[in-house]
Amino acid sequence: MLVVMNKNARPEEIDAVVRAIEERGMTARPIAGGDRVSIGVLYNKGSVDPSPFLGMAGVMDLIPVTRPYKLVSREFKPEDTIIRVGDVAIGNGHLTIMAGPCAIESEVQALTIAEHVKKAGAQMFRGGAFKPRTSPYSFQGLGEAGLKILAKVREETGMPVVTEVMDEENFDLVQEYADVIQIGTRNMQNFSLLRRAGQARKPVLLKRGMSAVIDEWLMAAEYILEGGNTEVILCERGVRTFVKHSRNTLDLSAVPVVRRESHLPIIVDPSHAAGRRDQVIPLSRASVAADAHGLMVEVHHEPDKAMSDGAQSLYPEQFESLCRQVRAIFDISRHEA
Amino acid sequence: MLVVMNKNARPEEIDAVVRAIEERGMTARPIAGGDRVSIGVLYNKGSVDPSPFLGMAGVMDLIPVTRPYKLVSREFKPEDTIIRVGDVAIGNGHLTIMAGPCAIESEVQALTIAEHVKKAGAQMFRGGAFKPRTSPYSFQGLGEAGLKILAKVREETGMPVVTEVMDEENFDLVQEYADVIQIGTRNMQNFSLLRRAGQARKPVLLKRGMSAVIDEWLMAAEYILEGGNTEVILCERGVRTFVKHSRNTLDLSAVPVVRRESHLPIIVDPSHAAGRRDQVIPLSRASVAADAHGLMVEVHHEPDKAMSDGAQSLYPEQFESLCRQVRAIFDISRHEA
Amino acid sequence: MLVVMNKNARPEEIDAVVRAIEERGMTARPIAGGDRVSIGVLYNKGSVDPSPFLGMAGVMDLIPVTRPYKLVSREFKPEDTIIRVGDVAIGNGHLTIMAGPCAIESEVQALTIAEHVKKAGAQMFRGGAFKPRTSPYSFQGLGEAGLKILAKVREETGMPVVTEVMDEENFDLVQEYADVIQIGTRNMQNFSLLRRAGQARKPVLLKRGMSAVIDEWLMAAEYILEGGNTEVILCERGVRTFVKHSRNTLDLSAVPVVRRESHLPIIVDPSHAAGRRDQVIPLSRASVAADAHGLMVEVHHEPDKAMSDGAQSLYPEQFESLCRQVRAIFDISRHEA
Amino acid sequence: MLVVMNKNARPEEIDAVVRAIEERGMTARPIAGGDRVSIGVLYNKGSVDPSPFLGMAGVMDLIPVTRPYKLVSREFKPEDTIIRVGDVAIGNGHLTIMAGPCAIESEVQALTIAEHVKKAGAQMFRGGAFKPRTSPYSFQGLGEAGLKILAKVREETGMPVVTEVMDEENFDLVQEYADVIQIGTRNMQNFSLLRRAGQARKPVLLKRGMSAVIDEWLMAAEYILEGGNTEVILCERGVRTFVKHSRNTLDLSAVPVVRRESHLPIIVDPSHAAGRRDQVIPLSRASVAADAHGLMVEVHHEPDKAMSDGAQSLYPEQFESLCRQVRAIFDISRHEA
Repeated sequence: MLVVMNKNARPEEIDAVVRAIEERGMTARPIAGGDRVSIGVLYNKGSVDPSPFLGMAGVMDLIPVTRPYKLVSREFKPEDTIIRVGDVAIGNGHLTIMAGPCAIESEVQALTIAEHVKKAGAQMFRGGAFKPRTSPYSFQGLGEAGLKILAKVREETGMPVVTEVMDEENFDLVQEYADVIQIGTRNMQNFSLLRRAGQARKPVLLKRGMSAVIDEWLMAAEYILEGGNTEVILCERGVRTFVKHSRNTLDLSAVPVVRRESHLPIIVDPSHAAGRRDQVIPLSRASVAADAHGLMVEVHHEPDKAMSDGAQSLYPEQFESLCRQVRAIFDISRHEA
Repeated sequence: MLVVMNKNARPEEIDAVVRAIEERGMTARPIAGGDRVSIGVLYNKGSVDPSPFLGMAGVMDLIPVTRPYKLVSREFKPEDTIIRVGDVAIGNGHLTIMAGPCAIESEVQALTIAEHVKKAGAQMFRGGAFKPRTSPYSFQGLGEAGLKILAKVREETGMPVVTEVMDEENFDLVQEYADVIQIGTRNMQNFSLLRRAGQARKPVLLKRGMSAVIDEWLMAAEYILEGGNTEVILCERGVRTFVKHSRNTLDLSAVPVVRRESHLPIIVDPSHAAGRRDQVIPLSRASVAADAHGLMVEVHHEPDKAMSDGAQSLYPEQFESLCRQVRAIFDISRHEA
Repeated sequence: MLVVMNKNARPEEIDAVVRAIEERGMTARPIAGGDRVSIGVLYNKGSVDPSPFLGMAGVMDLIPVTRPYKLVSREFKPEDTIIRVGDVAIGNGHLTIMAGPCAIESEVQALTIAEHVKKAGAQMFRGGAFKPRTSPYSFQGLGEAGLKILAKVREETGMPVVTEVMDEENFDLVQEYADVIQIGTRNMQNFSLLRRAGQARKPVLLKRGMSAVIDEWLMAAEYILEGGNTEVILCERGVRTFVKHSRNTLDLSAVPVVRRESHLPIIVDPSHAAGRRDQVIPLSRASVAADAHGLMVEVHHEPDKAMSDGAQSLYPEQFESLCRQVRAIFDISRHEA
Repeated sequence: MLVVMNKNARPEEIDAVVRAIEERGMTARPIAGGDRVSIGVLYNKGSVDPSPFLGMAGVMDLIPVTRPYKLVSREFKPEDTIIRVGDVAIGNGHLTIMAGPCAIESEVQALTIAEHVKKAGAQMFRGGAFKPRTSPYSFQGLGEAGLKILAKVREETGMPVVTEVMDEENFDLVQEYADVIQIGTRNMQNFSLLRRAGQARKPVLLKRGMSAVIDEWLMAAEYILEGGNTEVILCERGVRTFVKHSRNTLDLSAVPVVRRESHLPIIVDPSHAAGRRDQVIPLSRASVAADAHGLMVEVHHEPDKAMSDGAQSLYPEQFESLCRQVRAIFDISRHEA
């Protein structure tokens, strides 16, 4: 960290900051600049809590230098993490497509969609049994009955299944049925749930929070790795901005940044980013072109009758076209690399 | 809800939308405009899930008309809710100041600060025992030991205490010690926790999510009221924007909007909005001037040594000055009204 | 437009709104909903200025229905606009790559880069002679000398040139030398400049404002079309958000939305969106995969010595690789369509 | 500036950065940290252009240390600037209220409103003659006829007038009539216009751009001061965020930050921030409570008939109440200070 002093900071103010740093067991190294002094904070383990210094007399600004995350960082583990779920691999060199309805509504619905998406080229099936809904009056998912349907889908199609867990109470239950456990956007900083996921025996798909910067997202993953679970898949799903023409703004530069900073795989959910069907295919193509390791896409055979998020669900034939297009783009990048 | 059709939507597309509306038990009322048709959706109970319609052929846009919340709305309950905690009242006609350290660090620390803030004019004491921290390596709070210190503070000073609950697992424990239970920014849409809070026997202080619009915030409160707990205090604490000179951007227009839309009291936390001490007093004054029902302010007698968020904690003498100033501003608005 | 009344709006308040609408020569059509009245505003020409109604007694909200733009809309002109500049076409069916340095620094620099980018596959040359700079102390461009160098580049390489105009004063000068006149982000709502561009005899490349919604961007283009110049190329270049890992957040869903709403071509500038070289290639691939009609990319043969924006400029060999990759992606989409 | 290297940066990469710094006439001071090297850039004049370094091998990040602005900074001129316009003073120790309609519509309208606001306590009159409008089809202002009406208002009431200039073409004309020349939000980075304003003989009111950070805003003012005009009044008017309940989000922490960083006066425009009348009074009170040096408020005697922005215009009696309230709040802060 760098403590930047005011131009007119007095020597005793500078000394006070130096002392405060050293009282915390770190080394202070004042740097005389052209017209002001900065103080480097050295030999600290990990990142420094900047709070105590910011309020001290003569201090103008604090500038973090060290990255706060460790276990998730590429500096800690240079080689890419590849996560294997049955026959499916997620990570560098692979393009993994997960697809299915927003919510599991019935066995017939789930199996119908599963067959469609498998045939089109999906490798994993997604579907919500516990649904986080803005309104307490909206459909909240089938709960355990939904999980049982997911197990049936896996049995019938051979596809591993990914589904969301909303709380610690149902964690064991979800873990029993799911192949990959999803932690949703609204829970990205539910630290109790992250700690529980650190104890899980299954890979975790961690969606980016609605307004999370990448450091916060990687720190949320760090909670899981720190707990002992090293299998985390990151999922970009758009961030909240002033823009109104899509539900969220897909932040595709997150893909190269995460790939540079971390060894963990990163996929993209274009359905929740867009919020409307007609943007899903272009954003899917763009995500793969930006080097995402996979996609998570909502598909419904009767979107007009879907119990949630029908507007963003693709028809099966659209999904088939999507798979064909993104595979072709993926082949180009593989060839190029 | 209003379904807006494309200019060139064909009659059969309009008919299909009308049918889809009526199949859901609502009334469709097509409105021929200058150059396009819109279809009003009437007689629905509460808000309509727009998803199924957005993807239909010929549909250009969907426009919600009805507010999604009920129990929290002023249309449902016109008179202001006043919440009483011991001798303290929170709500219209009162200015309630809650103050204390970010985290409870020790009995001495808590009692020292409590005496300061009580003398300066605070009516409630705040302090974290369970701390949500971005990093798993940061100080996470004293847990139950912290709660016991809070009980001691109440005993010694007579001030009710407010503290955060992070998960359902510790809900009973926190409820046993706290007078007001806080749900933090990162948990605003932790729906399992909100449902648990709906069962609580204590008032809940619900902070606004980092990028929540007011509808989402009020819907989070609706979860609590729907569960049977009608005592919710809303707390504006800044939203995340591109702005860098404060940690978050305090959204003071939220105060008049919430007061118009809802009967629930709304207070402001200027400390987390600012993230730096030198903005806390001006933002506190501004919050009271904007008609907030109270403030939640971080105070520490030795902020340079605080274990979290020292940079935004006021010195006791600053807090004393703050109380004096905001009381004077509050008196003006009372006089004016 | 739809005027939504409060649940408890009184009949005389509803009547007053109806009268206010009709006084403006429009038709008011009250719609009795389940628990509140809405009033449709019909037969208006174009969009209605909502201001007068929002403040009236009993009014809860105003909801625009009609799109505000006309000449730029696909409803007005269904077929795609293709703009021809010499042998180069910009618009549907084409992928047009414009490349060059941020600023023209010297004849040698410009010609060296121009040869590189032409060989790599660029069809147009970009370079700034008048530079909008945040600081008055930064290099402001070579002015007319820069324009002359651009003319030399065109002469030597045959590539048309695009360069920015910053004000009306230099409009004639820039128009004399440029093949395409760029209006930059910071001038997107400089309405005097837009009106001047409406009189221009050259195509205009209109960058999206830093926080412009699509309606505002299309309305800025409407100013130009309304003035008589129908050749406008839109350029997405990222919007300002809370995100810190890129200079701006590239909003790729703007591409399908603009293509649906308007007949004008839309290209993407990944260099200004990213602000750092290592994101430019992935974002370029993503842009073409999202169906942009072209790219505008910064290239410099010695980026470490560039007088502005060196950090985001590609090396010539990177640009060559970029061209190869995006052409391959473009071929897939053509094949698919 | 601080150049932060990757953990595994090689010595020759560090050397290359050091050389690049010194080739630019600055001093490089490498600082060995716990696990990575940072390089301080010293003795530079003003701020360093970070671009060339960001793309160099081994470089992880660049961190600006020095503030980019000079003439506007409090470090350059510690004492507050007070601007005098006739008998009116704007700056520390004063609370200056400017009020009037959004647009000048007629002499009767302007004089009627002027009398109202003067009586209520406004010291300056505002009104637009040239109006920047999103749509080319909206009312664009009366132009010179509007300026003449402003002169009449000044003559009749004695109040100085402030009005917007949109381009260099009309600068002389506006300057002839206005006492204070306003540069609007959309032109905050119209650098040609800022340079022209630097030559002006009248004070300039510079509104903050819709998504400008404070550094950019102060740099825009720096353009004016650098040109020789030291009389600049800054005006906060809200920034664009995801929030929908107000037109913009008023950023009141900008007030203490600007007051700390700069000697220039700062006022607030709550009308454009809110966009709706019912938020204007609370936000006005909050602005004065946050220590703004003044307010700019829209008032109209018949807002339902206003030609622009009627929804946010106060009725004269509301404005009278506003003046009374903010004067009382201002007296408290004066008393306190």
